[in-house]
Amino acid sequence: MNTPIPPSLCPDDHVALALRLADAARTVTRSYFRQPVTVFDKADASPVTVADREAEAAMRELIERTAPDHGIYGEEYGAVRTDAEWVWVLDPVDGTKAFITGKPSFGTLIALLHKGVPVLGIIDQPILDERWLGVSGRPSTLNGRPIRVRPCPDLSLAALYATAPEMFTGTDATAWEALRSSVKLPRYGADCYAYGLLAAGYVDLVVEASLQPYDYLPLVAIIEGAGGLLTDWRGGRLGLRSDGRVIAAGDKAAHAATMAVLAKAGGGH
Amino acid sequence: MNTPIPPSLCPDDHVALALRLADAARTVTRSYFRQPVTVFDKADASPVTVADREAEAAMRELIERTAPDHGIYGEEYGAVRTDAEWVWVLDPVDGTKAFITGKPSFGTLIALLHKGVPVLGIIDQPILDERWLGVSGRPSTLNGRPIRVRPCPDLSLAALYATAPEMFTGTDATAWEALRSSVKLPRYGADCYAYGLLAAGYVDLVVEASLQPYDYLPLVAIIEGAGGLLTDWRGGRLGLRSDGRVIAAGDKAAHAATMAVLAKAGGGH
Repeated sequence: MNTPIPPSLCPDDHVALALRLADAARTVTRSYFRQPVTVFDKADASPVTVADREAEAAMRELIERTAPDHGIYGEEYGAVRTDAEWVWVLDPVDGTKAFITGKPSFGTLIALLHKGVPVLGIIDQPILDERWLGVSGRPSTLNGRPIRVRPCPDLSLAALYATAPEMFTGTDATAWEALRSSVKLPRYGADCYAYGLLAAGYVDLVVEASLQPYDYLPLVAIIEGAGGLLTDWRGGRLGLRSDGRVIAAGDKAAHAATMAVLAKAGGGH
Repeated sequence: MNTPIPPSLCPDDHVALALRLADAARTVTRSYFRQPVTVFDKADASPVTVADREAEAAMRELIERTAPDHGIYGEEYGAVRTDAEWVWVLDPVDGTKAFITGKPSFGTLIALLHKGVPVLGIIDQPILDERWLGVSGRPSTLNGRPIRVRPCPDLSLAALYATAPEMFTGTDATAWEALRSSVKLPRYGADCYAYGLLAAGYVDLVVEASLQPYDYLPLVAIIEGAGGLLTDWRGGRLGLRSDGRVIAAGDKAAHAATMAVLAKAGGGH
């Protein structure tokens, strides 16, 4: 299970750089949203646009200029110096499919890792002008106002999000179905925005699979700093080499109950 | 298949009333969004809040005061005078599940029927400040700017939305799966907002089932006025007594191809 990170681990100038990265990405994504953009297919058949690429390039350029000894792990342009003490993890457009269909649930995701542990996270939604910020040892904020997860007294009362049922394959699909039928309000299609809603106390659970490190590492500090938990399906801490399965929960007991339902149905193997 | 409606069928004062209804609902929904509201379960186990009820009550009060001979068919407070020449169809919060989880993809839906035929439609998204308006015989608009569907040269290139796979049961579920695997970009979770994105040219198809008249009638004039089609799964015009299955398409050939895939897989029976 998670153990608290000492609050001293993220210097203020790193937080300031993170906010400038989000600003830089926002300028790019806003300029391309609902404009005609060419959609390219990546090797895994997922779509990518010039907005994804230019937003990541803008962030990388800022990091190289400001903190050239830091590592970078980005969705579009890969990894450099990931053995550095500080490593930035960048997803310029999480929810590219939402982005290219004009739906403002996508977001720019930014994490900062210190020796492999996420100590800062940002979800930035440029169209709704909403920015979540998590810094280890501080309360997480939405547009500067502190946020807090809500209690969930029983799994049968929970509001649960996942991006799409197709992200679960094999026994994970069975496990998802078991979980979905255990909660009150199962919903799809919110991408990273669902985790922001959980941190702000409007959603109880987000359970997903088939994620990449840049999809989940930026969410850790936000959810933990709002009083919630974000782990893999066995309750383990998330890192660059996790298996892509995550449980986000606002309530500790609901987190444990979710792990139990998923494990009982054979999920996570 | 659909035949054009003469443009004279929606007088300007009815359009003005429709816009006032949307304003009245917006005041209510904005005041309750992301505030603690009690969620009640309706007879069909779907959730409803004081926002749904007060928004519909505000719209009904305006209609009774301004056009007391018009009929009303609303989600929360039922039907009066539905044999009138003009009948308003109201869904104060389409996407209540999105609303109560803080996700701004819900909308207020308003239709005006003339002798049973939809001649006006509104989708109003109060948080994003976006209003779609369709009036028969006029180009549809988004915040006053004319909008237009986009061509979709082949089903294999289409972006397709539905609220959730669970809305399809029996052979409809098989048919949905056949359609989902025929398109490029299947997505979930946008409620009425998906139809607005289709009318504005960002999405190619929305296919749903288990809908009520107040879910789909407000969309007809918007989609037709943007150059698209909104029919049942057999291509028939939608009315108060349709079976709740709909196909929205921006492209006529994509609409026909969708009907063919659904029918071949046994959907619609």
